[in-house]
Amino acid sequence: MTTKTNPGRFFEDYRVGEVIRHAVPRTIAEGERALYHALYPARGALYSSDMFAADCGLEGSPLDDLIVFHTVFGKTVPDISLNAVANLGYAEGRWLKPVYAGDTLRAESEVIGLRPNSNGTSGVVWVRTTGYDQTDQPVLSYVRWVMVRKRDNAAPACETVVPDLAAVVDPGALVIPEGLSFEGYDFTLAGEPHRWGDYAVGEVIDHVDAVTVEEAEHMLATRLWQNTAKVHFDATFREDGRRLIYGGHVISLARALSFNGLANAQMIVALNGGAHANPCFAGDTVRAWSEVLDRAETSVPGVGALRLRLVAHKGAPGDNTLKGADGKYAPHVLLDLDYWALIPQ
Amino acid sequence: MTTKTNPGRFFEDYRVGEVIRHAVPRTIAEGERALYHALYPARGALYSSDMFAADCGLEGSPLDDLIVFHTVFGKTVPDISLNAVANLGYAEGRWLKPVYAGDTLRAESEVIGLRPNSNGTSGVVWVRTTGYDQTDQPVLSYVRWVMVRKRDNAAPACETVVPDLAAVVDPGALVIPEGLSFEGYDFTLAGEPHRWGDYAVGEVIDHVDAVTVEEAEHMLATRLWQNTAKVHFDATFREDGRRLIYGGHVISLARALSFNGLANAQMIVALNGGAHANPCFAGDTVRAWSEVLDRAETSVPGVGALRLRLVAHKGAPGDNTLKGADGKYAPHVLLDLDYWALIPQ
Amino acid sequence: MTTKTNPGRFFEDYRVGEVIRHAVPRTIAEGERALYHALYPARGALYSSDMFAADCGLEGSPLDDLIVFHTVFGKTVPDISLNAVANLGYAEGRWLKPVYAGDTLRAESEVIGLRPNSNGTSGVVWVRTTGYDQTDQPVLSYVRWVMVRKRDNAAPACETVVPDLAAVVDPGALVIPEGLSFEGYDFTLAGEPHRWGDYAVGEVIDHVDAVTVEEAEHMLATRLWQNTAKVHFDATFREDGRRLIYGGHVISLARALSFNGLANAQMIVALNGGAHANPCFAGDTVRAWSEVLDRAETSVPGVGALRLRLVAHKGAPGDNTLKGADGKYAPHVLLDLDYWALIPQ
Repeated sequence: MTTKTNPGRFFEDYRVGEVIRHAVPRTIAEGERALYHALYPARGALYSSDMFAADCGLEGSPLDDLIVFHTVFGKTVPDISLNAVANLGYAEGRWLKPVYAGDTLRAESEVIGLRPNSNGTSGVVWVRTTGYDQTDQPVLSYVRWVMVRKRDNAAPACETVVPDLAAVVDPGALVIPEGLSFEGYDFTLAGEPHRWGDYAVGEVIDHVDAVTVEEAEHMLATRLWQNTAKVHFDATFREDGRRLIYGGHVISLARALSFNGLANAQMIVALNGGAHANPCFAGDTVRAWSEVLDRAETSVPGVGALRLRLVAHKGAPGDNTLKGADGKYAPHVLLDLDYWALIPQ
Repeated sequence: MTTKTNPGRFFEDYRVGEVIRHAVPRTIAEGERALYHALYPARGALYSSDMFAADCGLEGSPLDDLIVFHTVFGKTVPDISLNAVANLGYAEGRWLKPVYAGDTLRAESEVIGLRPNSNGTSGVVWVRTTGYDQTDQPVLSYVRWVMVRKRDNAAPACETVVPDLAAVVDPGALVIPEGLSFEGYDFTLAGEPHRWGDYAVGEVIDHVDAVTVEEAEHMLATRLWQNTAKVHFDATFREDGRRLIYGGHVISLARALSFNGLANAQMIVALNGGAHANPCFAGDTVRAWSEVLDRAETSVPGVGALRLRLVAHKGAPGDNTLKGADGKYAPHVLLDLDYWALIPQ
Repeated sequence: MTTKTNPGRFFEDYRVGEVIRHAVPRTIAEGERALYHALYPARGALYSSDMFAADCGLEGSPLDDLIVFHTVFGKTVPDISLNAVANLGYAEGRWLKPVYAGDTLRAESEVIGLRPNSNGTSGVVWVRTTGYDQTDQPVLSYVRWVMVRKRDNAAPACETVVPDLAAVVDPGALVIPEGLSFEGYDFTLAGEPHRWGDYAVGEVIDHVDAVTVEEAEHMLATRLWQNTAKVHFDATFREDGRRLIYGGHVISLARALSFNGLANAQMIVALNGGAHANPCFAGDTVRAWSEVLDRAETSVPGVGALRLRLVAHKGAPGDNTLKGADGKYAPHVLLDLDYWALIPQ
């Protein structure tokens, strides 16, 4: 038997400064859009109606921001995280241009940091990944870091380079899509009356709804993003016989649930950070709550930005415990995401 | 924790004559169409092939009539049935214009009736809901009535207004899509030879096929219509830990199964009434039978109308019991639907 | 109760030379394409990206070759295999023209062979099925033979006609899509560096990945191809209460898994043969391996052909046993498929 298959990269295969062009560009169209709405209870009017989007100055309803994120992320998996032990964090994520049905995305990652672990069996790899459309314009850029196994524990330790990353994307750096305007925004059609000024820093919103997750759903989703990590698909792979749900599935579920209370926080424009606090499995009932972390003006009059913490959990309704006394995430918490969204002022 | 979330309307929040504009308009395209065909064994040639539809005088294959129904219905849920105890009935439903991929739908409901229950804890609300396309032309109109809880049992009882509803849509009021013609209708491609004249009033057709329903399927479908009632998604919501399947899922399943025997009953043009007789849960095996209730000519030569009772059940193959001696639906009956369909003469 | 439903054809209903026009033509578009990528871990760059396909001389990314196969196959089920006891084999399959989103497919089958079984209760039917697009150009042709029950065991035996079928499609008969060129082929974007010349006859490739199958997935897929055989949908139909997974679902799963090692074997152009060795059920974890059976030049410089055996199984990782000492398929083998694919030289 020959090995023409991809074993994935190991820690010692990365070099700081190296740029990896990821495989399998992908044209995303109406079908992916419909599947997104079947897989997640997404109801943001800007992503549901061409007419609502046109009334907001866009050429039509863009593909959901997280479709772009998952597609770009999925491209990176065979090169970055096939041998990853853990997905450690995100930073400096910015959506740079709306993506529409028919656009073709590809991705590249630059290795921007490496730190061997003291146990000699693994290390941390930082990459800055950029997604490009068919005109080679960047549509999304973010930093992700993962712990990756070494192929050979005897391989010499590389020099440690830890990138200097912003704790939060500066509101001045948020990219407002060209033409976006909330002047003619119809709050009734959008589903809620709450504007930028109605949200107070520190305010916590319980999103009320819940979804019990099925195996078929998370596998359909993860395949759609061409994410091939076998832990999501092969029930014989983990010792407990359970398939781990792709962390991005939980992000999309929680974001969609947050419509109820944040219906007007229409566009995700930055990802400040995020932690997949505990694994999610089929059968879990996922709930979500949000905390308003900050508010900012943007370069466009009438368009405000909210910095939001989005927490997904599998605990009881209304349980908004985040961490225990030890500073660790409570065992029912699945996701702690920090992002900027655009909302009418 | 703040409550920016939508608690839904309660019985005392409705006023006769009030018009509710529902949130989240939706552009429906090729993706929703494909998902419909993946979720239901739909095979009507007019809804499967652009060429077949063109040969029938239409601009292309319209979206399935029930996609339009589910989408419009889904829009109403947050305003009408979030606090509903029961979905009691439908009447005077008419499809007014075919909907094509790329159209954008929104919905409005007028409250046309209110009746407080004598127990003082709930009441019946009648609404006439209309779906509109992007040109503000109506595409579907129907009456639905639901039993809704009161927020405050001490709230004063309103005046009772019970609308006068037609038992059956008059065949003269059926809207035949502009251009529709069955002159060049290809019965071989359609799948069956049976014409309007081949069906006798009183005739019962067992549709033979059956589908065992999975959780992932009904949740994908219900999300696709942006129907957010938590009883369909949250396995912790009901005491028995079971997710109730959206009644419309059963309608679409039964209608698709009815292809086998009614392949030429192509277009649904009216909904005379309907009852969700018993709840449906994942694991149930759904079967269907139809009864020809009436036949009518239409304004277009060659286009006939059949009034059909469509029954979905989870009983044994061939069991066409509808009601018991007590006049109540047999426990295996899920759906009793009464509609008009167009068929070549 | 009347029987307007289709009981399917029985063995004595077929005549050699007869041509059957199958029902329900189907327009396939972006939605079916997206669902294919959600249902199978398909990553062939030519079928993922319009730009990659354009760089290979095509007008855009065609629909996956197996979408065409499943759609055409699905059309034949009500006429050919509704009363089939077994799907016995395939031969002389050729893809004749790429199919694009928006094309409408229909199918015809010519009965080319009949052989009554000696037990008098069934017989073998050979059909050559051709799929046509909206311009009546053939897009796919293949021979399939099935064992079909007799309606009446006393029906007289017909004359035996066994067609003379090629064991392998001659490489000279492979149809290379008009304009196809691998001159500007980007191996990095395609995902692997291996060319035609890198594969040796006899080489075996274990595709490493695995997928545990869910009921909802195979039913969504099978419905999408409008395949109505009840054994796939009705859990009460078989005595063991299990739904048999459509054999084509296993073909697509295995083909998609074979990306890992055969990423550049982009286009399926011929089906030499195939056996559904054992049934597949939900819960099975499907793996795949391939064997290079032959290599051939084609009429287009730079475009080579590989003849591949694709085996799907539900055994342990790396188990590439095909048959036992008795010459029968090992019990864990699900599929043994023999096809030609195009690959850059």
